[in-house]
Amino acid sequence: MTDPSLARALLNPRSIALVGASADPAKTSARPQRYLQKHGYAGRLLPINPGRDEIFGLPSYASLGDAPGPIDHAFIMLNGAAAVAAVRDCADLGIPCATLLAGGFAEAGADGQRRQDDLLATARAGGVRLLGPNSIGLINIADRVTLSANAMLELPDLTAGRLGVISQSGSLIGALLSHGAARGIGFSALVSVGNEADLGVGEIGGMLVDDPNTDAILLFLETLRSREAVAAMARRADAAGKPVIAYKLGRSEVGQALAQSHTGAIAGSDATFDAFVREHGIARVRTFEALIETAPLFIGRRPPAGRRVTVATTTGGGAAMVIDNLGALGIEVLPASDAVRQRLAAAGVPHDGGRLVDLTLAGAKPEIVSGVIGDLMAMPECDAVVMVVGSSAQFRPELAVAPLAEWASSPKPLAVYLAPNAAESLRQLVSDGIAAFRTPESCADGLAAFLDRRPPGETAAVDATAVAKARARLDRAASGALDESAALTVFTALGIPTATTERVADAEAAIEAAGRIGYPVAVKVAAAAIAHKTEAGGVILDIADAGALAAACRRILEKARDTAPDAGLTIQKMARGRAEVLLGYRRDPLVGPTVTLGAGGVLAEIHADAATRLAPVSRAEAQAMIEDVRGLAPIRGYRGLPRGDCAALADAIVALSALAGIDDIAEAEINPLIVNDDGAGVVAVDGLIVRQGKA
Amino acid sequence: MTDPSLARALLNPRSIALVGASADPAKTSARPQRYLQKHGYAGRLLPINPGRDEIFGLPSYASLGDAPGPIDHAFIMLNGAAAVAAVRDCADLGIPCATLLAGGFAEAGADGQRRQDDLLATARAGGVRLLGPNSIGLINIADRVTLSANAMLELPDLTAGRLGVISQSGSLIGALLSHGAARGIGFSALVSVGNEADLGVGEIGGMLVDDPNTDAILLFLETLRSREAVAAMARRADAAGKPVIAYKLGRSEVGQALAQSHTGAIAGSDATFDAFVREHGIARVRTFEALIETAPLFIGRRPPAGRRVTVATTTGGGAAMVIDNLGALGIEVLPASDAVRQRLAAAGVPHDGGRLVDLTLAGAKPEIVSGVIGDLMAMPECDAVVMVVGSSAQFRPELAVAPLAEWASSPKPLAVYLAPNAAESLRQLVSDGIAAFRTPESCADGLAAFLDRRPPGETAAVDATAVAKARARLDRAASGALDESAALTVFTALGIPTATTERVADAEAAIEAAGRIGYPVAVKVAAAAIAHKTEAGGVILDIADAGALAAACRRILEKARDTAPDAGLTIQKMARGRAEVLLGYRRDPLVGPTVTLGAGGVLAEIHADAATRLAPVSRAEAQAMIEDVRGLAPIRGYRGLPRGDCAALADAIVALSALAGIDDIAEAEINPLIVNDDGAGVVAVDGLIVRQGKA
Repeated sequence: MTDPSLARALLNPRSIALVGASADPAKTSARPQRYLQKHGYAGRLLPINPGRDEIFGLPSYASLGDAPGPIDHAFIMLNGAAAVAAVRDCADLGIPCATLLAGGFAEAGADGQRRQDDLLATARAGGVRLLGPNSIGLINIADRVTLSANAMLELPDLTAGRLGVISQSGSLIGALLSHGAARGIGFSALVSVGNEADLGVGEIGGMLVDDPNTDAILLFLETLRSREAVAAMARRADAAGKPVIAYKLGRSEVGQALAQSHTGAIAGSDATFDAFVREHGIARVRTFEALIETAPLFIGRRPPAGRRVTVATTTGGGAAMVIDNLGALGIEVLPASDAVRQRLAAAGVPHDGGRLVDLTLAGAKPEIVSGVIGDLMAMPECDAVVMVVGSSAQFRPELAVAPLAEWASSPKPLAVYLAPNAAESLRQLVSDGIAAFRTPESCADGLAAFLDRRPPGETAAVDATAVAKARARLDRAASGALDESAALTVFTALGIPTATTERVADAEAAIEAAGRIGYPVAVKVAAAAIAHKTEAGGVILDIADAGALAAACRRILEKARDTAPDAGLTIQKMARGRAEVLLGYRRDPLVGPTVTLGAGGVLAEIHADAATRLAPVSRAEAQAMIEDVRGLAPIRGYRGLPRGDCAALADAIVALSALAGIDDIAEAEINPLIVNDDGAGVVAVDGLIVRQGKA
Repeated sequence: MTDPSLARALLNPRSIALVGASADPAKTSARPQRYLQKHGYAGRLLPINPGRDEIFGLPSYASLGDAPGPIDHAFIMLNGAAAVAAVRDCADLGIPCATLLAGGFAEAGADGQRRQDDLLATARAGGVRLLGPNSIGLINIADRVTLSANAMLELPDLTAGRLGVISQSGSLIGALLSHGAARGIGFSALVSVGNEADLGVGEIGGMLVDDPNTDAILLFLETLRSREAVAAMARRADAAGKPVIAYKLGRSEVGQALAQSHTGAIAGSDATFDAFVREHGIARVRTFEALIETAPLFIGRRPPAGRRVTVATTTGGGAAMVIDNLGALGIEVLPASDAVRQRLAAAGVPHDGGRLVDLTLAGAKPEIVSGVIGDLMAMPECDAVVMVVGSSAQFRPELAVAPLAEWASSPKPLAVYLAPNAAESLRQLVSDGIAAFRTPESCADGLAAFLDRRPPGETAAVDATAVAKARARLDRAASGALDESAALTVFTALGIPTATTERVADAEAAIEAAGRIGYPVAVKVAAAAIAHKTEAGGVILDIADAGALAAACRRILEKARDTAPDAGLTIQKMARGRAEVLLGYRRDPLVGPTVTLGAGGVLAEIHADAATRLAPVSRAEAQAMIEDVRGLAPIRGYRGLPRGDCAALADAIVALSALAGIDDIAEAEINPLIVNDDGAGVVAVDGLIVRQGKA
């Protein structure tokens, strides 16, 4: 539970000071007062402006101190140092909460970051909670608190509703309000969090979880500033039966910047965000329209068991567009059950037995629509139903739109796409509590978000003994990044089988080592300066005897001489299995510890073909990761190819993910991990570990 | 040039017979007359209904023969045999053109196909040109010919404009009309082609190319029934400066059905359609909204040189959504030029030097907007400019929307996304001739369609000598599919280097052959019954001597005994290069001869990572194909890896694509083709050829 008095001061203050209010209606700093007055704010409004006695009919005060208290919330429209001074005034006067409009803080480079640190220190010292800086303010529609400079408040009326919005972009609050108003989609509150110096998405989201006017929480995100708070909020929201639906920018970053490690390159920051939302039960949409359209699918419903849908329509072309988009998202469309076919036959509607239940003109009648949707809902293997309505949605909503209201509270959701521009029908569906989509793309996207959502995961347990062993090995290792041999000992400690390996200085020692290990062997360069051994010509495989080994050692040392004159060699028992995978661990700056599985080699990187999860992972989740990597299809039995040991691979994923229990590991990578035939295990043959701040 | 008298009879008839017209306004067969009368059709209307003397105030006739001629166009609303009879009447009476509403023809299975064949034969014999069957009709807005049963004609007014629409889905015409009407987007004509028994997309498109009221042609496609006609139309449209913009269903089919050959599996039907549109200069959109929004980008402009854009905005969040979608489509966003930065600095607008030119509230002024867009347009490396407008689009269009009209006819296009629901501004932009988008996704999609469009390709020349040689080898080969050795001789004839190969019966002969070829060798099973040799355990590589070869031969023949008791062996010089690729040729049922390049192995298939073009290809196009395959990055020098011989690979692609010159080849595949180090060529080591109807 969040602090109710803070929530009240922030979202429903009884008195507001407008610091830096302007009397010039054209100015941005005049907007909050204009909007609060226009939309009927019922509390006390206190403009603060040393140059005026009166603003828009209200007395204006020279300073916060001059204004009659108590003041619940100060909306500060000053810049830089003046803004910090205003927060200090709030602290002195015991004002519990302030919103800062100005930019020029953390988003504006190092100087701005220092200014923001100052601001936060001042607020913390004085017990003032901050929204912003760089926040356009907040809009609590139910209580008529339109405390924002967002120009969308020029709207004559605001539509109250049950969706709460938290946005890292201030202007997008206006776009959501605007599109909602045009379609009868109403909001409880919309909050622009700006730079989140203090109050952030997680804490404010918590207030919406507790808000009786809010049924669902929509997030517009540019980044993730406090993962713990957002995760806790999402889990509390799930427990309260309130879905959290997120749109996040940054989908296209994948593959843009090649990180130092292979893991970073193939995981990508968007995949780590996906791992975060998946773990904590947050739904993610990928189109902006779906962000405001899709909530009715979720409200009052638990995550589905599967991801299979049925589709009925009065317009074949319109429905085909939705099915095409669903197919692209990997969602299966089921053919109609016998019950549906019999109903269509009885009604004289021809049906070709395909995946689309086309009612045609003949079936565009309330009793047929209602009966067919009911039959589709009753199919046990179906997780959601889609209805696509054609021209009748515009001219005769009583035929195929009105009957849909019946399914507003059904256990499985109904998603409706209207092919024509049918604004009245869209409004009617929204008001009935049905998810109504304006484009085939957003319909498929919203549905996929619903079908892909899973309940928040149980926190996986870590093998404490293995972690302790690994930590002991780490403590013995040299500082900085661990090389191949040192890293392999840590992986062994975690319980991951590793290839027998010896570190040697020269060809002579290599031959002795190979005698102990047994041929065939591999020889690799060992030097801190050479991270990508293969590319540097530092790996020779499948060496069958001492003569070949001596030649190989000489060749490798010769190649390394310029870049790494102190290079040594690693001799390793040769391993060749069914497949090579990359198994990576990374403490992501946004989402924290993650584990990534990719198919082996450079192609996994090129195709960004990897599965990423928050670490640690459970064994079930590790198995799901193996299913998610397309390039591992061969070891899963694709085209009848012999299977690899997926069970041992899952064990290795779980084992590596336990590194989440060791704070100072920034990154670890096994590349490759050889997956042998089913039953024959896995073996790590190369890898590295990078410690926090030591890379 | 299409036949002007046919175009007039079809699209602008002076007299129309409505065969099977109903007097019951609730019936579908009453609609065309109701709509024609309602929307002010100026020609003669002749309802045909043996049971009525009068329908909606007009005299009704018992039969076509009873109606006073001449009749330009018969709109037939009868089913099955009655529809065929009506076409026969048209023939008898010299009516040049008929539209058939009824379904139940080719789209309804074998019986329907026979009925359609009948229909077509009747029409052809009598000189009647047909639209349909299964066509909802056509709407010529300029001339008020609303000859359609589409319920969207209930609209009080239709918006005339300069976009022509041809659709394989009848209901989607209504959806386009509806969305257009709501946004001020007008059409010249909309034609539902139904099953295209006679008149199809190509021929009707040709009429729109010749239509002075049409500036751009929009296609809504489910399939491609006559590639030659569509290709010819697209090329004529390009010459006339009229863009052709297509939306096609079936994007998600890729990878659904695994075809017999690897080529079919990795090419996919959607990739072949892409190859078709690319070759013929057709633009392709992937969102439905973009189909009606994007035409102003194209009208009056040639395809761009590159695919780089600049983005200006008054709303950071809104523009970030567009950029994110552009990034996902691989379109580069350029940072602002110095001129833009100086202008922003002079106007007091802070700019962070990033890729987004955020004017902020301070820059939302007509002179700044106009100046900045002009500066961005002037950047020589920029191919198009995007402007994203926030809340001012809704309340103060004079600030940042009105100034955009200036760029309607600029050499480079301007794409505008309005973040709020700003219907009036959208209408204004449309009326100004600016491409205005309602979602960030359609904005990016429409822009990508523009940037990806290239002029129609020159037809590549085929090496006639090589084709003649290959044809001679084919004539000597056994009938049916060609096995490995036979196929390799054909590839050799085409000029593709192939590995030295001998076909032998047993181990003894194998050892003799290897003596001639030289070790190391590969041995492979040779049997018509075994298509996937590796999966069947029928390939052993890297054999170093006669002993190993004898053992390998015995093992392979033993494995093959059950499925192919007559199996022989192929002995081949072992080849190991820098990469393995799949090179395929396929006569696609929709688009005709195609050539496909994929990275080697099962992963190329799993990732659907391939480039497909219409065959034959030019050398430049072959080089572009190599660039398009992500998995070939390593041989292109990715991460400093040694390059493969891409020049020789391009030669091989061109050579294989010459199979387009041999009609009876259904499919050919080289898998793998080994690509050696740069300068060391390529070598085909396995392959097959399947002849038309002989598989």
